[in-house]
Amino acid sequence: MYGLIYAYRRGKGEKFVKEVKGKKPVFVCVIATTETAKIPGISAAGRYPELTDYTPPADVELLFYGKCKCISGIPVTPEGIPTPAIITMTALKLSNIPVFVVSGGLKIKPKIPFIGLADKPGMDIRTGKAVENVEEILNKAKLFGENLAKISDYLVVGESIPGGTTTCLGVLLAMGYDAKRKISSSMPENPHNLKVKVVEEGFKKAGISFGALKEDPIKAVSLVGDPMMPAFSGLVLGAAKEKPVLIAGGTQMVAILAILKTLKPDILENVVIGTTRWIIQDKNSDLKGLVDQVTKTPIIAANLNFSKSKHDGLKAYEYGVVKEGVGAGGVAIASILKSKGKITWKILLEKIDENYEKLIGMGKVE
Amino acid sequence: MYGLIYAYRRGKGEKFVKEVKGKKPVFVCVIATTETAKIPGISAAGRYPELTDYTPPADVELLFYGKCKCISGIPVTPEGIPTPAIITMTALKLSNIPVFVVSGGLKIKPKIPFIGLADKPGMDIRTGKAVENVEEILNKAKLFGENLAKISDYLVVGESIPGGTTTCLGVLLAMGYDAKRKISSSMPENPHNLKVKVVEEGFKKAGISFGALKEDPIKAVSLVGDPMMPAFSGLVLGAAKEKPVLIAGGTQMVAILAILKTLKPDILENVVIGTTRWIIQDKNSDLKGLVDQVTKTPIIAANLNFSKSKHDGLKAYEYGVVKEGVGAGGVAIASILKSKGKITWKILLEKIDENYEKLIGMGKVE
Repeated sequence: MYGLIYAYRRGKGEKFVKEVKGKKPVFVCVIATTETAKIPGISAAGRYPELTDYTPPADVELLFYGKCKCISGIPVTPEGIPTPAIITMTALKLSNIPVFVVSGGLKIKPKIPFIGLADKPGMDIRTGKAVENVEEILNKAKLFGENLAKISDYLVVGESIPGGTTTCLGVLLAMGYDAKRKISSSMPENPHNLKVKVVEEGFKKAGISFGALKEDPIKAVSLVGDPMMPAFSGLVLGAAKEKPVLIAGGTQMVAILAILKTLKPDILENVVIGTTRWIIQDKNSDLKGLVDQVTKTPIIAANLNFSKSKHDGLKAYEYGVVKEGVGAGGVAIASILKSKGKITWKILLEKIDENYEKLIGMGKVE
Repeated sequence: MYGLIYAYRRGKGEKFVKEVKGKKPVFVCVIATTETAKIPGISAAGRYPELTDYTPPADVELLFYGKCKCISGIPVTPEGIPTPAIITMTALKLSNIPVFVVSGGLKIKPKIPFIGLADKPGMDIRTGKAVENVEEILNKAKLFGENLAKISDYLVVGESIPGGTTTCLGVLLAMGYDAKRKISSSMPENPHNLKVKVVEEGFKKAGISFGALKEDPIKAVSLVGDPMMPAFSGLVLGAAKEKPVLIAGGTQMVAILAILKTLKPDILENVVIGTTRWIIQDKNSDLKGLVDQVTKTPIIAANLNFSKSKHDGLKAYEYGVVKEGVGAGGVAIASILKSKGKITWKILLEKIDENYEKLIGMGKVE
């Protein structure tokens, strides 16, 4: 339906689509930063490693204002490829989906209204002390999720955290999943070896080994995770009791599933992954294989294709740069579902092209 | 309808009730603190003046958890009379209305998910420098209001800020309204003279006089207002473009109306005051007379009557203590409207009595 790609468990995916089409979602973007992102070569979510602190706040400012406030221009990779928040912003505006922002811990605060669940960014996981107060963040997020579920038909939850695939690898390995060389990257050349080395350093400092925290996701996040994870998981725990939740992201979503599976497995019945075609076609990662290890959650991918974009910055997505983030895939799917197909992939691409032009030209989308 | 009291402009009030009955509201509680509350004799919203810092966070914790976390017990006046948050909590639970919390600036942070629009509490208005970044707080609150309006049928907005009637007097006098001896108080003996003296000291320090800021509410709030005001006004500005807003409070709501009237008068068509019988029957204040000076906004009052309560702490409301706060009147009205009268004043009273007992006994409402 609507040219969606059912990448895993088609039947359950179609059931979700049937249930929510024409309904009213809310989008929640969970942001956080981790010092892990500053390890050279780990993240492309910022022109330089030090700039990754600004990427999540700039991303959500773009969603609210059509321009960033804490930086000039918009977040880009070292090669100048733009943030997927352009996709998210365009889809939200086209379909008039409301947006709420939750922070698990940031260094730089966005100039928007947001729910701050903790004050500090995550530490470099090589310290083996990645996140403080994980349970408190999770419990507060849960309360917000419960309240949002009361006034929406379903939730779309996305994330923006540079370095998030490395912390994801940390949590999945700590919980005993075979995740090496399966986690995605914002770079076309996925630095698998570097990520494993970083995680192993964290394990050594924390005094844990592969699979040691199979039953303790809270501790896994505390030691080698990031502050996005408890905020994101808490939201799903609160909302999915009552309403379907489309968790919007790439392989990082598998860490969320692993956390949820241990804390409240029955909630997973109400959870679907929404991602992009670039993720499911990526040769350097394996979302399906990872999900399959944890729980049989359906995967739906947005059929976004930038090969006919007018702009090289967007065409680069077809070569495996960026791929996903800021809930881009899930929000694109939700915009099409909300409009019952009146918004098409073609319309989305045209509008994304247009907005990219405006951001380069005037620095703002009206 | 439903035994509501139409205290001012019955026709418009009835129209609002007809429009929203059976519909789904969200409740937003705007909290903040001001050093003004610590002037001895100004506020009864706390056992001692220094404890007023804890009252707003404790109030919203009560709404989320059925108990307070930042204090033991619940907020009380110096005589031990309980916070009106008991009414709000009871009505929210009975009618399953979702709650969101926005802070304009606090000293003590509540242990709940909330949107913090600024980091600092308000200063003592005798300094003539009451609130920093008023416009920024207002603009961020507006964005949150816009997003909430997209997913709810109407908003109920309440407040908790000790000392708020004094800052209200400050803003109304700065804007040229005849407000002396008309503003309410949480104490039965309204300290009108003290409040005027405090405002006059602020005026002197700020170098302004009565009516000097008739056209500049932003400056009036900056000099002699409080941080609740821009957060509250911004929410209404964002939401009332699209959906009706029940502003829930006593005479403080008149400062909000005065701000809105200057910034965006047409928005007022979509605004109604929801308050308590204790406010409209108060001999020591004049809500109707104040509203009448600013704009013809209808007033609907909750017909709560504690004279038959089993508890002296609640009966005291009948003698003019507390009267209103934490959106108690508006949320009571909304709970009755949402249930189309299935929830009655009698049911509310019984449940409030029961919850008060639990809070005294076990310290928690399940």
